[in-house]
Amino acid sequence: MKFDVVTLFPNFFISGLQSGLIGKALSRNIATVNLVDPRQFTTDNYRKVDDKPYGGGVGMLLKPEPIFAAVNSLQVLPRRSTILLSPQGSPLTQDILQTLVTNYEQLILICGHYEGFDERIRFLANQEISLGDFVLTGGEIPALTLINGVVRLLPGTVGKSESLKTESFNSSLLDYPQYTHPPVFKNMHVPDILRSGNHKLITKWRREQQIQRTQKRRPDLLEQWLNSEKH
Amino acid sequence: MKFDVVTLFPNFFISGLQSGLIGKALSRNIATVNLVDPRQFTTDNYRKVDDKPYGGGVGMLLKPEPIFAAVNSLQVLPRRSTILLSPQGSPLTQDILQTLVTNYEQLILICGHYEGFDERIRFLANQEISLGDFVLTGGEIPALTLINGVVRLLPGTVGKSESLKTESFNSSLLDYPQYTHPPVFKNMHVPDILRSGNHKLITKWRREQQIQRTQKRRPDLLEQWLNSEKH
Repeated sequence: MKFDVVTLFPNFFISGLQSGLIGKALSRNIATVNLVDPRQFTTDNYRKVDDKPYGGGVGMLLKPEPIFAAVNSLQVLPRRSTILLSPQGSPLTQDILQTLVTNYEQLILICGHYEGFDERIRFLANQEISLGDFVLTGGEIPALTLINGVVRLLPGTVGKSESLKTESFNSSLLDYPQYTHPPVFKNMHVPDILRSGNHKLITKWRREQQIQRTQKRRPDLLEQWLNSEKH
Repeated sequence: MKFDVVTLFPNFFISGLQSGLIGKALSRNIATVNLVDPRQFTTDNYRKVDDKPYGGGVGMLLKPEPIFAAVNSLQVLPRRSTILLSPQGSPLTQDILQTLVTNYEQLILICGHYEGFDERIRFLANQEISLGDFVLTGGEIPALTLINGVVRLLPGTVGKSESLKTESFNSSLLDYPQYTHPPVFKNMHVPDILRSGNHKLITKWRREQQIQRTQKRRPDLLEQWLNSEKH
């Protein structure tokens, strides 16, 4: 997978792309990330990337010209999607991440700006994604999130592919409680059943715990699950 | 605001906390971020922070001892909250960010691990927050998101406090379309009304656009707004 990230803050991404599992995957070329700064595509002496809104209002908006020039400078592959990260997009879900992995070989990510951007920038993108119903200083964290979630699903990133299968949101239920050593810690015990060796009972217990936890914490997800074909 | 972040990947955060508006706010001590690596609190020769799950299953879980030791090493302030970042938490919203800003002077953020963590770690936290219904390699991006969203709301971070007031999710409606120079770009025109100078009409047009856009893109938010007192 090839990512091209159009951002006023390319330095933002450096350490977040070097750490942990994603850092390893990128160093092994499972994916590549190309950072492009629209400021490099300005033509005036001030390298101006934002300007005042028409019609009044506070804050500065991203101008269209440098963003168009930055996107148009990219080498493009046939199976690509251009995604605008903004609070007005579709909220990110695991299904969206899976669809991106399945359908595309290049993702062009345009990072929005905390005070807004010229509406015409929307014409560059074929989809618009939001991280959730909250406001951040820009689209950089949403872009980093999308890269992380996509790279993690690419073959070779996570060692055992089974690790991807049983976790939250692949089954639409929250995870069951998990325990490791020590068996007793600060007077809190690992449930006996998990140490019983009876795998049939353990599987049953885990599924019950998933349902109970989802019902308690996220009744909306439980309802989705009950209405789906997945169980 | 004082943030303490308990993470196996302290280096992940470096560049993400130096860029843009958040970098400026931290350099002016509007908030401080202290990164704590639980690996520094291991007592065995291998500095082991994870171990196999009881009851079987793939993947390694974060062990409880190093996380407890890391959290217990922190200097604590009276008005604090300890937050576990995990996919099983409450999905982050602007209301949660605002509540954190209003109620606390210290946020202790415990980053989960992509394969899971020992259930007993939950007892350290008084709240659990998820970034959304998707899976990432760990709690680092959710922690960075929370820091960004909180710091942005602190007095002094965003220049004009009005910039915080009119944007998406403060009014529960999506933003209206915004335009800046040039008036015509690639044959796309700034709407005449925004150049009319008639502020009453502009305000009316913007509100209509907000409602139309929210209806089209996020009917769930429009319904919330219609049922609320906000309009």
